Amino acid sequence: MSKAVFYHAGCPVCVDAEQVVLDYLDNSKITTEIVHLGTERNRIKEAEEAGIKSVPALVIGGNVYHINFGASLDEVKG
Amino acid sequence: MSKAVFYHAGCPVCVDAEQVVLDYLDNSKITTEIVHLGTERNRIKEAEEAGIKSVPALVIGGNVYHINFGASLDEVKG
Repeated sequence: MSKAVFYHAGCPVCVDAEQVVLDYLDNSKITTEIVHLGTERNRIKEAEEAGIKSVPALVIGGNVYHINFGASLDEVKG
Repeated sequence: MSKAVFYHAGCPVCVDAEQVVLDYLDNSKITTEIVHLGTERNRIKEAEEAGIKSVPALVIGGNVYHINFGASLDEVKG
């Protein structure tokens, strides 16, 4: 079973992308954790180290997939 | 059954994103068509009209999800 982590910050672009992730990723092949960096601020460092430049982003097996552009990670860090 | 169209241009970023789409989208919920705009150039207009600015991009139900950045649509048009 693969693991995906979807990082977002509650922005409209994020919510829209989250819906696709929740609706269409195959739960029999991959488990997805949803991380809201606006509230789970202790996960920001981990997101940065994974190579995330903006949210929303999906991390699967060490690869980062930025999905459209909601906000830069710098903006999320504030 | 929803329908997704994944547009790409054969670039390394595209191939990487395509693998995720093929491996992890739930085939019981969504059918995915793969379109290579480098070879299927008659589909470029449709991609543009869908709102695609760069590839790779996934279109689901009228929404465009640009996944990372491989090449601009202008570059694909050449």
